[in-house]
Amino acid sequence: VRCGMPEVVLAEGKEPEAFAGIMLAQVKAAGRCIATRVSPEHLDALRARLPPDVRMEHREAARGVILSTGDEPAPRRGTVAILTAGTSDVPVAEEARLIAEEMGCEVRTAYDVGVAGIHRLFSALKDLIPADVFVVIAGREGTLPAIVAGLVDRPVIGVPVSTGYGYMGGGEAALASMLQACSVLAVVNIDAGFTAGAFAAQVAHGGSRK
Amino acid sequence: VRCGMPEVVLAEGKEPEAFAGIMLAQVKAAGRCIATRVSPEHLDALRARLPPDVRMEHREAARGVILSTGDEPAPRRGTVAILTAGTSDVPVAEEARLIAEEMGCEVRTAYDVGVAGIHRLFSALKDLIPADVFVVIAGREGTLPAIVAGLVDRPVIGVPVSTGYGYMGGGEAALASMLQACSVLAVVNIDAGFTAGAFAAQVAHGGSRK
Amino acid sequence: VRCGMPEVVLAEGKEPEAFAGIMLAQVKAAGRCIATRVSPEHLDALRARLPPDVRMEHREAARGVILSTGDEPAPRRGTVAILTAGTSDVPVAEEARLIAEEMGCEVRTAYDVGVAGIHRLFSALKDLIPADVFVVIAGREGTLPAIVAGLVDRPVIGVPVSTGYGYMGGGEAALASMLQACSVLAVVNIDAGFTAGAFAAQVAHGGSRK
Amino acid sequence: VRCGMPEVVLAEGKEPEAFAGIMLAQVKAAGRCIATRVSPEHLDALRARLPPDVRMEHREAARGVILSTGDEPAPRRGTVAILTAGTSDVPVAEEARLIAEEMGCEVRTAYDVGVAGIHRLFSALKDLIPADVFVVIAGREGTLPAIVAGLVDRPVIGVPVSTGYGYMGGGEAALASMLQACSVLAVVNIDAGFTAGAFAAQVAHGGSRK
Amino acid sequence: VRCGMPEVVLAEGKEPEAFAGIMLAQVKAAGRCIATRVSPEHLDALRARLPPDVRMEHREAARGVILSTGDEPAPRRGTVAILTAGTSDVPVAEEARLIAEEMGCEVRTAYDVGVAGIHRLFSALKDLIPADVFVVIAGREGTLPAIVAGLVDRPVIGVPVSTGYGYMGGGEAALASMLQACSVLAVVNIDAGFTAGAFAAQVAHGGSRK
Amino acid sequence: VRCGMPEVVLAEGKEPEAFAGIMLAQVKAAGRCIATRVSPEHLDALRARLPPDVRMEHREAARGVILSTGDEPAPRRGTVAILTAGTSDVPVAEEARLIAEEMGCEVRTAYDVGVAGIHRLFSALKDLIPADVFVVIAGREGTLPAIVAGLVDRPVIGVPVSTGYGYMGGGEAALASMLQACSVLAVVNIDAGFTAGAFAAQVAHGGSRK
Amino acid sequence: VRCGMPEVVLAEGKEPEAFAGIMLAQVKAAGRCIATRVSPEHLDALRARLPPDVRMEHREAARGVILSTGDEPAPRRGTVAILTAGTSDVPVAEEARLIAEEMGCEVRTAYDVGVAGIHRLFSALKDLIPADVFVVIAGREGTLPAIVAGLVDRPVIGVPVSTGYGYMGGGEAALASMLQACSVLAVVNIDAGFTAGAFAAQVAHGGSRK
Amino acid sequence: VRCGMPEVVLAEGKEPEAFAGIMLAQVKAAGRCIATRVSPEHLDALRARLPPDVRMEHREAARGVILSTGDEPAPRRGTVAILTAGTSDVPVAEEARLIAEEMGCEVRTAYDVGVAGIHRLFSALKDLIPADVFVVIAGREGTLPAIVAGLVDRPVIGVPVSTGYGYMGGGEAALASMLQACSVLAVVNIDAGFTAGAFAAQVAHGGSRK
Ligand SMILES: Nc1ncnc2c1ncn2[C@@H]1O[C@H](COP(=O)(O)O)[C@@H](O)[C@H]1O
Ligand SMILES: Nc1ncnc2c1ncn2[C@@H]1O[C@H](COP(=O)(O)O)[C@@H](O)[C@H]1O
Ligand SMILES: Nc1ncnc2c1ncn2[C@@H]1O[C@H](COP(=O)(O)O)[C@@H](O)[C@H]1O
Ligand SMILES: Nc1ncnc2c1ncn2[C@@H]1O[C@H](COP(=O)(O)O)[C@@H](O)[C@H]1O
Ligand SMILES: [Mg+2]
Ligand SMILES: [Mg+2]
Ligand SMILES: [Mg+2]
Ligand SMILES: [Mg+2]
Ligand SMILES: [Mg+2]
Ligand SMILES: [Mg+2]
Ligand SMILES: [Mg+2]
Ligand SMILES: [Mg+2]
Repeated sequence: VRCGMPEVVLAEGKEPEAFAGIMLAQVKAAGRCIATRVSPEHLDALRARLPPDVRMEHREAARGVILSTGDEPAPRRGTVAILTAGTSDVPVAEEARLIAEEMGCEVRTAYDVGVAGIHRLFSALKDLIPADVFVVIAGREGTLPAIVAGLVDRPVIGVPVSTGYGYMGGGEAALASMLQACSVLAVVNIDAGFTAGAFAAQVAHGGSRK
Repeated sequence: VRCGMPEVVLAEGKEPEAFAGIMLAQVKAAGRCIATRVSPEHLDALRARLPPDVRMEHREAARGVILSTGDEPAPRRGTVAILTAGTSDVPVAEEARLIAEEMGCEVRTAYDVGVAGIHRLFSALKDLIPADVFVVIAGREGTLPAIVAGLVDRPVIGVPVSTGYGYMGGGEAALASMLQACSVLAVVNIDAGFTAGAFAAQVAHGGSRK
Repeated sequence: VRCGMPEVVLAEGKEPEAFAGIMLAQVKAAGRCIATRVSPEHLDALRARLPPDVRMEHREAARGVILSTGDEPAPRRGTVAILTAGTSDVPVAEEARLIAEEMGCEVRTAYDVGVAGIHRLFSALKDLIPADVFVVIAGREGTLPAIVAGLVDRPVIGVPVSTGYGYMGGGEAALASMLQACSVLAVVNIDAGFTAGAFAAQVAHGGSRK
Repeated sequence: VRCGMPEVVLAEGKEPEAFAGIMLAQVKAAGRCIATRVSPEHLDALRARLPPDVRMEHREAARGVILSTGDEPAPRRGTVAILTAGTSDVPVAEEARLIAEEMGCEVRTAYDVGVAGIHRLFSALKDLIPADVFVVIAGREGTLPAIVAGLVDRPVIGVPVSTGYGYMGGGEAALASMLQACSVLAVVNIDAGFTAGAFAAQVAHGGSRK
Repeated sequence: VRCGMPEVVLAEGKEPEAFAGIMLAQVKAAGRCIATRVSPEHLDALRARLPPDVRMEHREAARGVILSTGDEPAPRRGTVAILTAGTSDVPVAEEARLIAEEMGCEVRTAYDVGVAGIHRLFSALKDLIPADVFVVIAGREGTLPAIVAGLVDRPVIGVPVSTGYGYMGGGEAALASMLQACSVLAVVNIDAGFTAGAFAAQVAHGGSRK
Repeated sequence: VRCGMPEVVLAEGKEPEAFAGIMLAQVKAAGRCIATRVSPEHLDALRARLPPDVRMEHREAARGVILSTGDEPAPRRGTVAILTAGTSDVPVAEEARLIAEEMGCEVRTAYDVGVAGIHRLFSALKDLIPADVFVVIAGREGTLPAIVAGLVDRPVIGVPVSTGYGYMGGGEAALASMLQACSVLAVVNIDAGFTAGAFAAQVAHGGSRK
Repeated sequence: VRCGMPEVVLAEGKEPEAFAGIMLAQVKAAGRCIATRVSPEHLDALRARLPPDVRMEHREAARGVILSTGDEPAPRRGTVAILTAGTSDVPVAEEARLIAEEMGCEVRTAYDVGVAGIHRLFSALKDLIPADVFVVIAGREGTLPAIVAGLVDRPVIGVPVSTGYGYMGGGEAALASMLQACSVLAVVNIDAGFTAGAFAAQVAHGGSRK
Repeated sequence: VRCGMPEVVLAEGKEPEAFAGIMLAQVKAAGRCIATRVSPEHLDALRARLPPDVRMEHREAARGVILSTGDEPAPRRGTVAILTAGTSDVPVAEEARLIAEEMGCEVRTAYDVGVAGIHRLFSALKDLIPADVFVVIAGREGTLPAIVAGLVDRPVIGVPVSTGYGYMGGGEAALASMLQACSVLAVVNIDAGFTAGAFAAQVAHGGSRK
């Protein structure tokens, strides 16, 4: 989807050729363009048609790619903390990070902090706490965001992840428990790393008073 | 439905007159008989027909009533701990307690420990920990059972409660998050205080080796 | 639920007497205490037991009540804009406003801007745009939040409202369309005015850099 | 199922050999016959058995094929406008177009008008507005049909498309938001390009008075 | 929600006083104004505040009311046929009729034709067939619209009705079977008489060529 | 599942080797044994281990296989009529036929009678009507069983089939419309040809009076 | 619904006056007419308008009423056995009995046999077994029909009942478990006593051979 | 997710290389480590990196693997009985067994006892009855756990299995019927052999009194 933020393209579901065409048109028009959920076929199609004056950066963990015609993203403005409960949540976290960094934020991460005991979470939070906003990513029962929201004063965005089998698996239990949470929490769609990262960057940028 | 344990009657959905008839037949046959989800109308019908040799005990918080022809329940055997996350969960907890006590268990409770900070939960658990089994009752996102299961070595039974509005309200989010929980947890139906209490008593009674 | 933010009590589902007890305990402990979804019976129970040194303020449109022992809320810090698509959404909006104001934010509102043509929305946004964050509340198909998110640079929080009959009525279609939105949007539970208002206040307060 | 309009065959789910047999029987009987959702295997089976006096036209973008024994479809009668929100919606749009043209309508299209700003939509509508009826196709949150219905006086048929992941993905959120829409809108099943095109043609043909 | 067509007000869910205020403002501004799903309380509030120069017409079977300052609706343009499967569907049919007539169409009806044998339906259709468009309303399994669509050449709009208990009751089975129908059919939300009537009127008005 | 009727094995989901073992044990014990949903791999495993004194019959259209050690099924007793709405429903119909014949019934079929006009159905029924019971199989909106039930006096068993895409596709709309049907109809699970055939045979066998 | 069998009227959801009119028209036309789900208000309306030559019989347990102008139902033909798991299922059973008797069948019943141990069921079945067909009615987990089907050779019709709270309560778990049952079982809608009774009567009548 | 019990790793969904790394780190730290849902690729990765001082045991039926640096699991303490209704349930049963044995319990099993008649179940139970706790595993309608719970005095844990097609297939009907069961039963997620086995072991270990 080229929507919301015009310079981001969702590769998934697009023919590689068509995808490459859209990307190159966008980078030409805007100087910079990101894609998420990029497959090897999408990358090949892009590489085959890449003009010499366009730089291409592949972020494997985020399944993302960035095209640009030279200029750096804006200087860092605001800090986003990204936490995951497990290791399966990392690709969604990396997608969020990619966008937040592109939107000029500093990003700090703490992955796989949902299990090895609450002290591990506490010490991770201590490192992250100067952050302006927290993105907390979890599958299965999805309780980590509510726990973090009970411990920090800044806004917490919950991201359900499509792990978990059986009843309400595939992220549905996580979505439900985040929406029902007693803590103050806002939520995005299952696996929606892009939306979470972009929303967090908007928060981190700070409002009009500043 | 008079099911599971024949001497327990679910009053809800039964005509008061029919209910009283079933109860009196059972106490006559078995010497002792419990009902759950009892309304004032059920109580009135029972009182109006109560023979002098049958003793009736009304447990208001549990919405329960016990008829007996004299003899005490069996001596205490095993200890059941019952915790609730909030105050709305208490009627379900009291239903569980009523049955567990009738089945001869000692019951210890800690209600409303889901919110006032994790230390409150820690100190509650300290008092309860010699228990043989834990029944943990929570609505909305239903995370308390999983947290308790991460802290104790004995079996934890999660009971979802029909609180919470909106998406997956009415206990569904709680049920889902308990079934998806990473901790080791077994679950009963939404609001099923009776089943949880009876199952816990079976665990607390201890197995054949003893 | 006394959860998330300890000084807020959800009156709905609580016995009036028990409710009043909880409120008075809280205001004594914390100097200030809010309740939402308050019925006339809850108010009566509160009034009957109100000590002379506790001030009670009833916010009818928000179905809320504030108890305090004297001191004002913190001075205004940050601005929250609240929009509704229709008039049925206003009680949810007022609940959000009550909390955001209690958390020290200036709140500006534009209600019923979802229909009378897009120009009405444009002119409403012009008045609101210096806001730090937008809470956009809509029922039925729930598209207003995504439209606003396409027009402003600050974070937009979508609140689905339980209007709409038939298929996916009661706010479910609105929740679904907000979670699927192409615009950058974070979402709270159906009718969750309290959560939206508190989250928006956290955003409006601004991060650590300031 | 060969249903609705007897001369249209849904290839999907039919064995290629059986499919070819049905098609040839129909073109022999009726002089003309269309198939939708045709795979390469279906095409091969058809080509292998095609008699010299039957003409075969493959419409790739619509995944359709037309067999005929000579005569043109009826002369153009009425105009159908077809719009899509994104590029993923185009195959459904092309299926609608194929049928509407076969039913003798002039078809005008505007694809991918859901995102590049509302002015792009306005200018697209300006070109299309003399149309008798609008088919508007969108996935994810599916709001484009309601927006178009608010802007034109002629009937608008919404077609949800099976894009979007996570909660109510696969077209369900789009279906829900179209059914809940405040604008006057009629809806067909998810991905049902054929039904939308045929219904639109019936509208465009005009009623008995003409 | 005053939406879709600005001069139609959905009374349901509005406070009687607020409802009356909205209605009177609209009739003053537009000379004419309709409300649907009107309760006796809504009517009383309206009557109490009705100025002498506003005429009020109550359509009981349609649960509707029309306010006007004198001028007739536009002269008849196009014919809409409305059929129901049973008698429980009649209020939805009358709501559709009210709107279609207000939009200047002639309306012909055949109610309760779903059961007394297929000949009853045939003879009803014979009377209705010169219509430009058919609105077919049915609850439970909702098959009547598909049957009618198989018998007529003009567009058929299916309206599911919230009858039927048990699995997929309340109109859901009817909605599902209409969306899955083999015949060419467009659908509106469960009980959405207003939308069906307005959409049918748009079809009946005829397109730009006329 | 070897359940209900002990000599029928569901091949699907079983390892070919394990499947062959179960089949051969059963034919040895009972002289006769059927399997349904048999893949080529299952057939190969069976053939490889088939002893010379066991006869194997492969019913391809029914995806079934029959093992026997000689004796014929019981003589024909009762007549079962099987109808399908489309051609995609035929494998389910053939599974029903296989079982009903094995249970000693005469089976008459009329396939693909749901579309080519109601007269085609009428003439099919005329041939079938002396049947004792009707199995009517349909996917998508699943209305054929209800129509047949309105035309015949003998019991009609509806079988939903997993065709149809989009909302409530995969047989769910068909199941719902059959359960909601106004006609007198009993239903089995989606695609459950075996259950329908066996139930029909029980009906056709006739009761104790005969 | 006056559908399926023309002389049966579903009172529920009909205005008492309209209901009485429909009933009297039917008894005049057909000599005999039944209604189910009749409220006291329906009865009053009927009594108030009952002509002297129409006899009215009220079957309270079945919530049914029978109007007739004299002649008895047809002589008994076939035997239907009706079993319930609990006492809450009895009204549905009585509705089934009313119809089956009206259709000329002998009906034998065994109520509340789902719990008091399997021997109680065995002895009940012994009395019922000469029956031509079994209607087995159960709520909550709904397993009784499958158990009966495993014990008898005649057709078993399962009727789910809307008891049971929590997850899949209201009869949904019962419907699901009956459709998934390993035994040979056909099913009707939740609480559909009328359909089950009429279907059973059709089976009991016996087929054409007799 | 490495959760619940830290020394158990869910292989499914993990990259083979990452999986092997996690396993080896755990066995080094804890002397012993189990994995469930292990694919051949996971095994290969493990074997390729296995140090000489780590012993690897592959439990094929349980899809599990155990790494250890020498010492045996704790001596047997408590007895767990595991039953399955069918043969498809065996992998889930073996997963439960693996964990329970690792936790030091004696395990006795009776597989495929759901069908060959109730006497087979009775004789199986006779062998198992000295067990401290029962794990009962069933798919489709999932009734076996409730039947066992009606026959034994020790706690019964129901495990729904993802067998069964059509309506509520994939284990959902089984889950629903277990949660609605009249017998006293606790439940785990669909296919959750690990959770059931670990919970059963906690029960079998016996409580604090011993
Ligand atoms: N403004 C929009 N409103 C609703 N849906 C949209 C919009 N833009 C794109 N989509 C949908 O998003 C999906 C992916 O779009 P695309 O990336 O263009 O293929 C398609 O199903 C579009 O209909
Ligand atoms: N920490 C928590 N985790 C899960 N649910 C909770 C928690 N705290 C409160 N609740 C639930 O919120 C609901 C309302 O709580 P209360 O306001 O105390 O009656 C109850 O069902 C509680 O179980
Ligand atoms: N009596 C029964 N009750 C419940 N489920 C059963 C029963 N018998 C078999 N099943 C289930 O049917 C599925 C297929 O069984 P099988 O064919 O033995 O692999 C398994 O999930 C079994 O649990
Ligand atoms: N042939 C039919 N097809 C579909 N629904 C029907 C049919 N006949 C009656 N109904 C529905 O059954 C419900 C009750 O009908 P009635 O008893 O006439 O009020 C209404 O919603 C009807 O639409
Ligand atoms: Mg917080
Ligand atoms: Mg534990
Ligand atoms: Mg924006
Ligand atoms: Mg319009
Ligand atoms: Mg037609
Ligand atoms: Mg019939
Ligand atoms: Mg049987
Ligand atoms: Mg037991």
